[in-house]
Amino acid sequence: MNSNTFQDQEGQEHSYKYGSLSHTDAATRQQAIDHNIECIEIGRALGSKALTVWIGDGSNFPGQSHFTRQFERYLDAMKNIYTALPDDWRIFSEHKIFEPAFYSTVVQDWGTNYLIAKELGPKAFCLVDLGHHAPNVNIEMIVARLIQFGKLGGFHFNDSKYGDDDLDTGSIDPFRLFLVFNELVDAEGAKDFDPAHMLDQSHNVTDPIESLMRSAIEVRRAYAQALVVDRTALAGFQNDNDPMMASETLKDAFRTDVGPILAMARRKAGGAIDPVATYRASGYRQKVAGERPAVTGASGGIV
Amino acid sequence: MNSNTFQDQEGQEHSYKYGSLSHTDAATRQQAIDHNIECIEIGRALGSKALTVWIGDGSNFPGQSHFTRQFERYLDAMKNIYTALPDDWRIFSEHKIFEPAFYSTVVQDWGTNYLIAKELGPKAFCLVDLGHHAPNVNIEMIVARLIQFGKLGGFHFNDSKYGDDDLDTGSIDPFRLFLVFNELVDAEGAKDFDPAHMLDQSHNVTDPIESLMRSAIEVRRAYAQALVVDRTALAGFQNDNDPMMASETLKDAFRTDVGPILAMARRKAGGAIDPVATYRASGYRQKVAGERPAVTGASGGIV
Amino acid sequence: MNSNTFQDQEGQEHSYKYGSLSHTDAATRQQAIDHNIECIEIGRALGSKALTVWIGDGSNFPGQSHFTRQFERYLDAMKNIYTALPDDWRIFSEHKIFEPAFYSTVVQDWGTNYLIAKELGPKAFCLVDLGHHAPNVNIEMIVARLIQFGKLGGFHFNDSKYGDDDLDTGSIDPFRLFLVFNELVDAEGAKDFDPAHMLDQSHNVTDPIESLMRSAIEVRRAYAQALVVDRTALAGFQNDNDPMMASETLKDAFRTDVGPILAMARRKAGGAIDPVATYRASGYRQKVAGERPAVTGASGGIV
Amino acid sequence: MNSNTFQDQEGQEHSYKYGSLSHTDAATRQQAIDHNIECIEIGRALGSKALTVWIGDGSNFPGQSHFTRQFERYLDAMKNIYTALPDDWRIFSEHKIFEPAFYSTVVQDWGTNYLIAKELGPKAFCLVDLGHHAPNVNIEMIVARLIQFGKLGGFHFNDSKYGDDDLDTGSIDPFRLFLVFNELVDAEGAKDFDPAHMLDQSHNVTDPIESLMRSAIEVRRAYAQALVVDRTALAGFQNDNDPMMASETLKDAFRTDVGPILAMARRKAGGAIDPVATYRASGYRQKVAGERPAVTGASGGIV
Repeated sequence: MNSNTFQDQEGQEHSYKYGSLSHTDAATRQQAIDHNIECIEIGRALGSKALTVWIGDGSNFPGQSHFTRQFERYLDAMKNIYTALPDDWRIFSEHKIFEPAFYSTVVQDWGTNYLIAKELGPKAFCLVDLGHHAPNVNIEMIVARLIQFGKLGGFHFNDSKYGDDDLDTGSIDPFRLFLVFNELVDAEGAKDFDPAHMLDQSHNVTDPIESLMRSAIEVRRAYAQALVVDRTALAGFQNDNDPMMASETLKDAFRTDVGPILAMARRKAGGAIDPVATYRASGYRQKVAGERPAVTGASGGIV
Repeated sequence: MNSNTFQDQEGQEHSYKYGSLSHTDAATRQQAIDHNIECIEIGRALGSKALTVWIGDGSNFPGQSHFTRQFERYLDAMKNIYTALPDDWRIFSEHKIFEPAFYSTVVQDWGTNYLIAKELGPKAFCLVDLGHHAPNVNIEMIVARLIQFGKLGGFHFNDSKYGDDDLDTGSIDPFRLFLVFNELVDAEGAKDFDPAHMLDQSHNVTDPIESLMRSAIEVRRAYAQALVVDRTALAGFQNDNDPMMASETLKDAFRTDVGPILAMARRKAGGAIDPVATYRASGYRQKVAGERPAVTGASGGIV
Repeated sequence: MNSNTFQDQEGQEHSYKYGSLSHTDAATRQQAIDHNIECIEIGRALGSKALTVWIGDGSNFPGQSHFTRQFERYLDAMKNIYTALPDDWRIFSEHKIFEPAFYSTVVQDWGTNYLIAKELGPKAFCLVDLGHHAPNVNIEMIVARLIQFGKLGGFHFNDSKYGDDDLDTGSIDPFRLFLVFNELVDAEGAKDFDPAHMLDQSHNVTDPIESLMRSAIEVRRAYAQALVVDRTALAGFQNDNDPMMASETLKDAFRTDVGPILAMARRKAGGAIDPVATYRASGYRQKVAGERPAVTGASGGIV
Repeated sequence: MNSNTFQDQEGQEHSYKYGSLSHTDAATRQQAIDHNIECIEIGRALGSKALTVWIGDGSNFPGQSHFTRQFERYLDAMKNIYTALPDDWRIFSEHKIFEPAFYSTVVQDWGTNYLIAKELGPKAFCLVDLGHHAPNVNIEMIVARLIQFGKLGGFHFNDSKYGDDDLDTGSIDPFRLFLVFNELVDAEGAKDFDPAHMLDQSHNVTDPIESLMRSAIEVRRAYAQALVVDRTALAGFQNDNDPMMASETLKDAFRTDVGPILAMARRKAGGAIDPVATYRASGYRQKVAGERPAVTGASGGIV
């Protein structure tokens, strides 16, 4: 749900300033529910099989919202959306520690996110955005927990150093990205395990197309490195309590230069060996820039 | 469980260096289970009604432990302890983000803690130590969530600025302590709501008895201030989306000087109006210090 | 400097997408310098005596900028502005850990900020925005250090729980605000000590005028409480290494209900005893809202 | 300074419970000064050329210490030690955000550390322990700033995820370690640039000798990767504001598998190609373990 306001069935528009699915006003909640159901209808026409729900609901000041009643309203609204979900669809809820709400958010972490997926039912899963956690949190462990309890829905990939920075995937902490994929490869074949992979980034100083190409490469690099892990040896070292060799087994895979394999895979798939260089040589950006008015401003775009 | 090692029934001692309840070795896990069951037996003799389980299990390096198998072993061991728990007892599990394990801990946050309490059954609850969370985390909201889902077991009160600093309760962020008690007062009468209140502090530069007196006063202060909150007005402002008046309603209670009420309550209960001053005037510390050898060292005590 | 672009003397406009005062391009840096000098000219006409410089310069990816050359360019540009500063003005530089740059910022913390003020000269000082620090950082200690070395310029007051949240001053951690004012009152009379006090907030869910009134009250409350501290007793306890009584001396002042004094001071100054209530009763907002078109959207304003 | 107490010249022992070099008591400060001067004497005999000073001084509660007077006492004491420093020696001060003091530390960050080195004189430099910073802080930028202002003394290498975890260097965030060495290689030849490299780690679950071998390898790996950076190309991309190619230039170096080069370098120096495997095959640990009593306890060692 991107729009801040929306028209309800009587044509009246309710503001989401104080919340959407968890708003204290029933008509505003209904508007937000209707909005999501309309998204399902559009998705049906487009052939989609999943709905992602992220809301900015929360509060800015202690006391502004009653945590429990707010969450009850949210759950109630989500159940309405869930009922409208086709049987072969999944619904993903997304947690985020802060922003745009600055004191509390309704779905603040994976704990609340898990409770939502559990309350809703078997079609409900948790989405993990790598940038939506408190400082220092072990994200790959959250991924493992959600897999273990059958509730990992997928990812918004990006990278960050401070908050929800939405930088190019793997650009700040490539080892962390590898550790997430290490969990995914390890879990292949687990029950209810079919994560959806999405990039969710904001490109302020790079060409967005180049950043997307780079991020796709990094996701594949982490995946390839995770595939290289000697899992039999790793399990042995884990079982024997040999932290030195266990951690070096992971590191060996991370250090493996899978770049040539990735390049060959791209070539075999009809793609470019060096996507960014090929893209730059193509002159595509200059061509497109000439066809539409230049965008100015700090938010990136063509300058 | 404070001891690092323990003797099993055959008299063999297993080290907890690589874990206790989640250890890869079955005999070590059994030893830790037995240790807890022995604690229950001792508690029974003492008239206890609850067992708190905090373990330092985790890992120091990526790859050292398999997150899922480690947690499965932990859950399995806890189920053994749970089975031995008397019907009128409760078992509290405690989460902690890090330390002594520095890459991952088995019970890293309230999400995992909730899953434990849920898996174990109706006698299992979550213990919240105020200093065991990631930076910036909204603790009072975690308290509200655990209450809502019937799994708040109680608290280890203390205060902290950086990590598990175990400073005197209310000494660093008194408003946060008040906000926790605001949730507790709000929840009075909720289902399965009977939190146990404990102080868990480390006194390096103060007289421990004085610190305990001060902390007890601060817990009562926060409770009294939370009782002063005009909840009818607060609910109205929350419902009307008036964040200004809602937050000021909380702040008004926090700003209320309940010191005289607390002093009178102490006096009526036969206690001192000014406990620390009375304690100092009593000369108790000097008397005790003369009776036993002085303790030296950074860990506080009598110097 | 709020505008993202600016016209230089030849009428050409340089983008600040890749920086302003620290940009690699000399013409862009000159444009930013000129912009600041123009601000001084405007300020002169308005009777201002200080220029605040905050820039968003930094980098989003490791390697994007050369830290040292970027900072040298910044210092060089600032020296140009400093030269144009009237003798009776001060220039304030402001540090910020992140945003809008997400990997590094040129003036990332008080350490760099101090170096700037030192390099520029006696008219240069450091501005402290309470929300611009890394998690857990002891802000009141930074204030003390800047005072000690004669470089505290002033404040952007606000409050925050996660990042640069720009919430109402004192709304999240009132004790921290008090501790900042405790340093200010303690330092009265120190050399080069004449801090400028500003509010820098963003009001998304409250009436901005009400938030400003509340914040002004909170600043005064913290100041009044800091004035109440018994500094002779405090110094004695500090000297005697009595942390218990020293910290309680501060807390006693913080707990003092100075609300009535503040209300009387407002009344004597011709203001309202209860500013928000008076403002609401005046109907001012409704009157103004009727006179200009309603603003919609999450960014607050009249809805 | 490791000991908690020390005897002064009259044979009286002063406790460091409330501080050492910054203690309110002059005799205790003198004792700490004498201790450091004695360290210099011992170092002279051993052929040392540097003294590292890290102190745990600080406070646990707001109000316990007067920030400015405490820092003045520290500076005064350090000047006494500095005076006793041989002309060809350097003195390193080390900053740390918290622990063992939990509200404030005297040398809390690089800002204060820089001020110390500046106040003391040309033989004084700042030591950077990678684990002593606030969450999210950009450490490589601090390294660059200290180099730029001629005050980088050296490092305590280790790795960490949460606090001062003292894990094996490069085990948690190998890219960050590389970025630090990228600054060091870039600065080679800079004025007053001669950093001392030390490992400062705690080995709780690994064989300490193996951890030291691994850490030494990782330091060399990061150094070798930093040497591989194409600095001419990097400078060009930085100058042209091409963040994509600039960051990929760094990443290309980081991804380079320098393992074979490092192995060959070890072999040429008479060392082992695979140090840990060679060490294990040698049976050295078993031999040593048989010769001295086993160490038990959580702090690692032979169990």
